[in-house]
Amino acid sequence: KPNYPVADMMDDGYTKDHGYDYDLVVIGGGSGGMAAAKEAAVLGAKVACLDFVKPSPAGTTWGLGGTCVNVGCIPKKLFHIGSLLHESVRKDTPSFGIRLGEPNGASATDELSGIVPDPSTQMRWELVRENIQNYIRGLNFKYRVRLREKEVTYFNKLAKFTDKHTIEAVDKKGRSSLITAARFLVAVGGRPSPLSCEGAEHAISSDDVFAMEKCPGKTLCVGASYISLECAGFLAGMGLDVTVAVRSILLRGFDRECADKIGDYMVDHGVRFKRDVIPSKLEKIETGQTKVLFSDGTEEVYDTVLAAVGRMADTDKLGLESVGVETNPKNRRIIGKFEQTHCPNIYAIGDVLDKTPELTPVAIQAGLYLARRLFGGDKEAMDYQNVCTTVFTPIEYACVGLSEEDAVAKYGQNNIEVYHREFVPLEWSLSMSRSHNAAYTKVIVDKSPQENVLGIHYVGPNAGEVMQGYGTSMKQGLTLKTLTDTVGIHPTSSEEIVTLSITKSSGEDAAAGGC
Amino acid sequence: KPNYPVADMMDDGYTKDHGYDYDLVVIGGGSGGMAAAKEAAVLGAKVACLDFVKPSPAGTTWGLGGTCVNVGCIPKKLFHIGSLLHESVRKDTPSFGIRLGEPNGASATDELSGIVPDPSTQMRWELVRENIQNYIRGLNFKYRVRLREKEVTYFNKLAKFTDKHTIEAVDKKGRSSLITAARFLVAVGGRPSPLSCEGAEHAISSDDVFAMEKCPGKTLCVGASYISLECAGFLAGMGLDVTVAVRSILLRGFDRECADKIGDYMVDHGVRFKRDVIPSKLEKIETGQTKVLFSDGTEEVYDTVLAAVGRMADTDKLGLESVGVETNPKNRRIIGKFEQTHCPNIYAIGDVLDKTPELTPVAIQAGLYLARRLFGGDKEAMDYQNVCTTVFTPIEYACVGLSEEDAVAKYGQNNIEVYHREFVPLEWSLSMSRSHNAAYTKVIVDKSPQENVLGIHYVGPNAGEVMQGYGTSMKQGLTLKTLTDTVGIHPTSSEEIVTLSITKSSGEDAAAGGC
Ligand SMILES: Cc1cc2nc3c(=O)[nH]c(=O)nc-3n(C[C@H](O)[C@H](O)[C@H](O)COP(=O)(O)OP(=O)(O)OC[C@H]3O[C@@H](n4cnc5c(N)ncnc54)[C@H](O)[C@@H]3O)c2cc1C
Ligand SMILES: Cc1cc2nc3c(=O)[nH]c(=O)nc-3n(C[C@H](O)[C@H](O)[C@H](O)COP(=O)(O)OP(=O)(O)OC[C@H]3O[C@@H](n4cnc5c(N)ncnc54)[C@H](O)[C@@H]3O)c2cc1C
Ligand SMILES: NC(=O)c1ccc[n+]([C@@H]2O[C@H](COP(=O)([O-])OP(=O)(O)OC[C@H]3O[C@@H](n4cnc5c(N)ncnc54)[C@H](OP(=O)(O)O)[C@@H]3O)[C@@H](O)[C@H]2O)c1
Ligand SMILES: NC(=O)c1ccc[n+]([C@@H]2O[C@H](COP(=O)([O-])OP(=O)(O)OC[C@H]3O[C@@H](n4cnc5c(N)ncnc54)[C@H](OP(=O)(O)O)[C@@H]3O)[C@@H](O)[C@H]2O)c1
Repeated sequence: KPNYPVADMMDDGYTKDHGYDYDLVVIGGGSGGMAAAKEAAVLGAKVACLDFVKPSPAGTTWGLGGTCVNVGCIPKKLFHIGSLLHESVRKDTPSFGIRLGEPNGASATDELSGIVPDPSTQMRWELVRENIQNYIRGLNFKYRVRLREKEVTYFNKLAKFTDKHTIEAVDKKGRSSLITAARFLVAVGGRPSPLSCEGAEHAISSDDVFAMEKCPGKTLCVGASYISLECAGFLAGMGLDVTVAVRSILLRGFDRECADKIGDYMVDHGVRFKRDVIPSKLEKIETGQTKVLFSDGTEEVYDTVLAAVGRMADTDKLGLESVGVETNPKNRRIIGKFEQTHCPNIYAIGDVLDKTPELTPVAIQAGLYLARRLFGGDKEAMDYQNVCTTVFTPIEYACVGLSEEDAVAKYGQNNIEVYHREFVPLEWSLSMSRSHNAAYTKVIVDKSPQENVLGIHYVGPNAGEVMQGYGTSMKQGLTLKTLTDTVGIHPTSSEEIVTLSITKSSGEDAAAGGC
Repeated sequence: KPNYPVADMMDDGYTKDHGYDYDLVVIGGGSGGMAAAKEAAVLGAKVACLDFVKPSPAGTTWGLGGTCVNVGCIPKKLFHIGSLLHESVRKDTPSFGIRLGEPNGASATDELSGIVPDPSTQMRWELVRENIQNYIRGLNFKYRVRLREKEVTYFNKLAKFTDKHTIEAVDKKGRSSLITAARFLVAVGGRPSPLSCEGAEHAISSDDVFAMEKCPGKTLCVGASYISLECAGFLAGMGLDVTVAVRSILLRGFDRECADKIGDYMVDHGVRFKRDVIPSKLEKIETGQTKVLFSDGTEEVYDTVLAAVGRMADTDKLGLESVGVETNPKNRRIIGKFEQTHCPNIYAIGDVLDKTPELTPVAIQAGLYLARRLFGGDKEAMDYQNVCTTVFTPIEYACVGLSEEDAVAKYGQNNIEVYHREFVPLEWSLSMSRSHNAAYTKVIVDKSPQENVLGIHYVGPNAGEVMQGYGTSMKQGLTLKTLTDTVGIHPTSSEEIVTLSITKSSGEDAAAGGC
């Protein structure tokens, strides 16, 4: 239970005797919506949460919980973990003296079918996909139980505003009803943007890939941000033939040097990059494959084309115009301040809220804080500054604060310094098939006497685990001295961050020194 | 290069015209000694470093670099990593759809020798040991090169004080010479204590285990601290039959609850614990094995008995009495303040210095800071408070700050609160053969209005990577609010720490909630 006084819900015009069905109706049962709904209910509000999944253009659908658990963070990270393990089995077992036994899982079916098992280690799409999908179903079920436990009324219905205090809710069978509430929270998230070229309908998106019945096979990933690179990474790690079509640069918005290191690593990892192209036409051919014509005139045939060219907020048919909630026409995200939209009793959090990072913990925290402000007597607003983030590419990348480019832009090249180091993580140091000095960390500081830390970047294994704690120290206002006065934990990769000493401006080799 | 002004080494009576051979002679080329020697040399001092390895009672010897790299952190963590990978191959590959191929490394020799390879996955001692030892040789060589690059004169000689400014240095062949210096730094570290029972000579220690030519086989680990549990953990992870003889409790000095969770996990992991016993007699039997009689009257035969019952500082024959350097008779460690011994020109750092944590980064940082004070005009003393530490048992454990017991002792039961959570790391969540809710984290706070964080504890994968960043925030004075205001990184285990909400005093289930 939260450790602040539970508001008594009196006299605020909304939470008592307002005559509406609910104190709060949350539209969207994703990471943010569920968190806000449960917290508001715990604080005494009468809450309903509507969650409805519109099938993707390719026909994929899923259960309660939103993007993260069904078609985002969770399946992505599980495929990523499996693919890293697969890589480790192939690359690291020999140097650790591990001899693989009989092919495991060589099931009776295989023997009965008379199929001779492939002699090399392999990661089977059908098996991992099934286990991941079952795990997700378990979570879908848990979420439902949790909403019930917290006394949030759950409706599997699609919502649309009819007025400021009313939504129309439509179920799977098209039956419609009206629900009224004192306040609404819009937490409908976003959906993948389709390709804009001819034949775009032949591409799938991240909404489809994790649940594919058949192995995606030879795959083209279009786009060069998080989602495209993460998918390309785990597909290649499973042993598939993967190409990424890059329109301009990798990971726009992230630190350039780190983004390029990820690219280099992925090339070593077997991913092909087709640079400075976009697909100009997709065509289904007789084999069931897709022929892609690129903007540079080349063409190639793929089993699967995965479009990951950005996401749009899912506000299209929400009836927002009718209640005066404004959206950014570029991305359809809701414009607001402190999670409040232009309509006083309508709020928004998560991916649907413009100018906030599209991350699960951001949606959750914004939801918790908002619920506490609305029903808990709290005053505190969510702080979107210095949020840590991690990219789960084959070599992971995590950061907090500014990229080097942004630091230069903000403070000027002469007013910043970069401490950095290339290193070999101990877990990779015995194996010849591991890239050397692939891991990298850098800390950007200003040149004030106290050398304030502006950004921390880490490219290497377990990046998310490494970065989280530094996120806490960045909230406190971190100086280089505090960072490097911290005694390391040996042997770890994270100790590289607290023992940085080589400056970029010195021109010294970033791979020098170390244990 | 360090970013403070290099002292000009004038008029301090030691560094100029003092007539001694060196400005500084460092005795011991371990983590601490090498760091101090190189830093002092970079700052302009004339430095020599002596490192000499006395063979263990069982006859093991090694190269330059001290305990950490040869018989400590590095081989320990590498065996640990290999053993975790072995565990993962056995437990996780099926659920991630990974089918193992032909036994790898099924070398020609095996075929020629006609030995039928074992059909189950196995970790071969001889192979991993060889790779680890070769890696260590590479490091020994690098350390030598680095000392040379920094213009530190290295002697492979055993030192002994003859007076305050003179040591006798004896080489492998027994040839002796005298070396004089203005200042000395004692960084000789420690060595394992032998068992005190009859037949103690039949046990080996951590000085021997990592280099054993033959697989240790069925092993008894005596002692229940770091070293014993870490060794027991990786040996069991390799598939060996391992028993730990526990005199009293596991991991004295650490948080009880966390220590017990490690014990439970290790039992699941296949380690046997023999509680409340010590060996009372060891006897070699005809088979070459060792028969152990325990204090409870039971006896059992082992292939290897590993004693890990604490360490003693290696100051016995250093001639410290002759120069007025005092030691603690209990552990032979040098008594001093700010790394200065009772003799004004003799300093001590690392494992040899009493009342400081025996950890590599502590030795290194103390060495760097001391060199900067002696030769760099710096004033700052090493801060031994709130040093993070990690135990690399099969389920890892890391912490910073106070244990719950110490917090209660210091603040009183009524003045502290504990936030905690049991969780399943995502990487273990697909596999049925993984323990459930085995991972755990807790944060201990005082009950002041700002709820200052007194200790952070984490039992789970990648514990060292997780904890390091929080070590930095603890240096800044961390409050619960700052911690939980930090936006998480999803999906990670570390985000569990910044999203803690269940208090122990509430009696709520620590496994509740979560994603
Ligand atoms: C492939 C991929 C990988 C990702 N990986 C990560 C990661 O590793 N870490 C991370 O932090 N973030 C990651 N993200 C981002 C993360 O998933 C989102 O930031 C997060 O899910 C946003 O939560 P939300 O509550 O705003 O919206 P969502 O989780 O998208 O939930 C919105 C819900 O509302 C429903 N809905 C929409 N319209 C209506 C309506 N009219 N009526 C009723 N219900 C409706 C939707 O069906 C959906 O269930 C990833 C995203 C993707 C696509
Ligand atoms: C099994 C094991 C595992 C460990 N794991 C970890 C871990 O994971 N993380 C961690 O941080 N710490 C760990 N430690 C502790 C860490 O190894 C020590 O704290 C660290 O090595 C201490 O460094 P030092 O410089 O004080 O001494 P040492 O590294 O012990 O170096 C002392 C050197 O001095 C030499 N010497 C001794 N007497 C003389 C003499 N008279 N003349 C010349 N040379 C001499 C010795 O031979 C040795 O080379 C572990 C220790 C052990 C035993
Ligand atoms: N690990 C995590 O935490 C995680 C993981 C996944 C997603 N997310 C969240 O989800 C958000 C959306 O991610 P995203 O990767 O889908 O989108 P994004 O960040 O908006 O990037 C879109 C990418 O597609 C490219 N692109 C756009 N239009 C294109 C076209 N017509 N043809 C070819 N390429 C085109 C862009 O190239 P240009 O650079 O040339 O514009 C860019 O590389 C992220 O911002 C993130 O917050 C988080
Ligand atoms: N991961 C790391 O960072 C790491 C790893 C290894 C070592 N180290 C450092 O090395 C130091 C030494 O570690 P250590 O494990 O050797 O020693 P230790 O911490 O001193 O513990 C000694 C253990 O042996 C037991 N014991 C003592 N005498 C015994 C006897 N006669 N018979 C049976 N048991 C006996 C003790 O039991 P009681 O509790 O009953 O006294 C205790 O469990 C550590 O303190 C640590 O700083 C660090």
